[in-house]
Amino acid sequence: MLKKKLLILRELQRPQSVWELISRYDYDLHALCDELKALLEDGLVEYRDGMLSVTEEGEMALEDAGIAPRAEVRCERCRGRGIVYDAFIEAFETYLSLTENRPAPVTEYDQGYIAPEDVMLRVAFIYERGDLEGKDILVIGDDDLVSLALAATGLPHRVRVLEIDERLVDYINGAAKEYGFPVEAGTYDVREELPPDILGLYDVFITDPVETLPGIRLFLSRAASGLKGEGSAGYFGLTTQESSLRKWREIEKMLLDMNFAITDILRRFSTYPNTGNIGAALEEYPVYIRLREILGDLTPPDTDFYSSSLVRVELVDRPRPLVTGHVELTDEIYVDDEAYVTAKASRVLR
Amino acid sequence: MLKKKLLILRELQRPQSVWELISRYDYDLHALCDELKALLEDGLVEYRDGMLSVTEEGEMALEDAGIAPRAEVRCERCRGRGIVYDAFIEAFETYLSLTENRPAPVTEYDQGYIAPEDVMLRVAFIYERGDLEGKDILVIGDDDLVSLALAATGLPHRVRVLEIDERLVDYINGAAKEYGFPVEAGTYDVREELPPDILGLYDVFITDPVETLPGIRLFLSRAASGLKGEGSAGYFGLTTQESSLRKWREIEKMLLDMNFAITDILRRFSTYPNTGNIGAALEEYPVYIRLREILGDLTPPDTDFYSSSLVRVELVDRPRPLVTGHVELTDEIYVDDEAYVTAKASRVLR
Repeated sequence: MLKKKLLILRELQRPQSVWELISRYDYDLHALCDELKALLEDGLVEYRDGMLSVTEEGEMALEDAGIAPRAEVRCERCRGRGIVYDAFIEAFETYLSLTENRPAPVTEYDQGYIAPEDVMLRVAFIYERGDLEGKDILVIGDDDLVSLALAATGLPHRVRVLEIDERLVDYINGAAKEYGFPVEAGTYDVREELPPDILGLYDVFITDPVETLPGIRLFLSRAASGLKGEGSAGYFGLTTQESSLRKWREIEKMLLDMNFAITDILRRFSTYPNTGNIGAALEEYPVYIRLREILGDLTPPDTDFYSSSLVRVELVDRPRPLVTGHVELTDEIYVDDEAYVTAKASRVLR
Repeated sequence: MLKKKLLILRELQRPQSVWELISRYDYDLHALCDELKALLEDGLVEYRDGMLSVTEEGEMALEDAGIAPRAEVRCERCRGRGIVYDAFIEAFETYLSLTENRPAPVTEYDQGYIAPEDVMLRVAFIYERGDLEGKDILVIGDDDLVSLALAATGLPHRVRVLEIDERLVDYINGAAKEYGFPVEAGTYDVREELPPDILGLYDVFITDPVETLPGIRLFLSRAASGLKGEGSAGYFGLTTQESSLRKWREIEKMLLDMNFAITDILRRFSTYPNTGNIGAALEEYPVYIRLREILGDLTPPDTDFYSSSLVRVELVDRPRPLVTGHVELTDEIYVDDEAYVTAKASRVLR
């Protein structure tokens, strides 16, 4: 039996909602839906009262494949991250209070933010890699408010935020002023070249790009063009849920072509909490529509199911962005057939 | 000041041996030696009684750069791995007892093995990624005895070991027979094509290749050629100590060219303990000779300084090895000017 099927059966030895299954599955949602549908049709999995579980036939298939009940190997203390933010607990508290009145995500930009704890872990990892202290950091798209988490540590030299949503720009600038943070936010549309006072002047970029190939090529090119040169580093989130491994390979090719080495890939490093991120909008997501087709009655999410890997790259030479200058956008830049959750629009692209 | 220098100064706010500094530095030993030499000559670092530390001038340079005393962010519980092997504690005990009488590393193959705890963490990670249970696993070069750790879990379908050292082949086959493990070891020289009963028949490869570009191209090509196809995965160690990031980028290009996506890169996942791995031989290592030139009196290692990142790759299509058929070896395959610790020979190459 195919690995993509077996991994579903392995999880479903313990009955769980489809949302929990999604959170524990390392292939794209397309694959998950296809394989789950086949497993249900073949009678290896059943769906009852909102819970998926293996049937007796499913158990037999697992036995044939030599697969035992699932054991947990992710560290409980750091929830599998390897990183803790104890050293930045005060910064975290400041950051938490700064996120209390954050602008709510809006459908127009299809915003979604990372759990505050995971934002702080990202900051801690950036710190450990030597990319925080005294550094000039460029954030492209900041509904996570990572700029404020970075600044709350007191360690970066300055943080510049480029963001399309004026509410976020105002919010970040307001907080920066109140706290005396060296943070400056401005409105920016990724279709445009970076402003001349940013191009080639930053040590580090942070972004959570759209995951279509034309879209991510654009985001990562803009991000790369902001960097100084050899030794400058970038951090971005990439999901397996909306990006197949074929797409991962294409994205990795782009990164190498831009003169980056890929130095770290930390799986499921950033979780997107449902609370605050999704509401009624969920019913419009392709994944919801598809799952309802497959399962019939679909229960609301009972766990945070969307997460991304944290990728770190470092320039080994000058940045070589694949896109320069102004570009016209068409729909394929922000929607492809793997965009199952964030398909309606993108955060920075209009 | 350059990041490669600043990261040395940051560590040396706490006085430490050069070996500890090496263990905490993320660039190659070439860079470390060059930058350390310059910092000593410029009076920013001093060396006394075997300990390196920043001088007052060094402190000032750190202040200028906005760098504070080093905080620890790696999780204590899992030592930064994110993974624990509690679920495999019995397998670990079996593995430990099986490594007690392991053949000692010999200079001829320049062997070095990973700490048993870290071997077990690797097994736990392979398990979590769905690449252990019921799988056919190919190990190329096995002085770590990872084949026995895999088999001790009772989960793989079978494990095949290719290894040049007959002592290891005999040891592994002996243990497999005694414990009834589905493990088979045979002698193999990486200059040869894989035997026909291995080519294209495995789900997973594990290897710790030499780190010269021609050498790693050869190792990874052989490893890839053993895999079945889409969904098959590979695990290998790669250091920053003997591979610059420029080399990392070249290696990553090779992987993409072979139809792999890179799915995980876990920094400092595997430590090579000094005990049992290095002895008098250390004095012949280029790193030792170079450090003695720079520091004068060099104290013996007081910490395990050599480690590697764990890289996981997965095929998105058929494997496309870059090298096929028999190859003639010349010296550049196992020695380059970044080979500072394992330069004398390689484990599988004669």
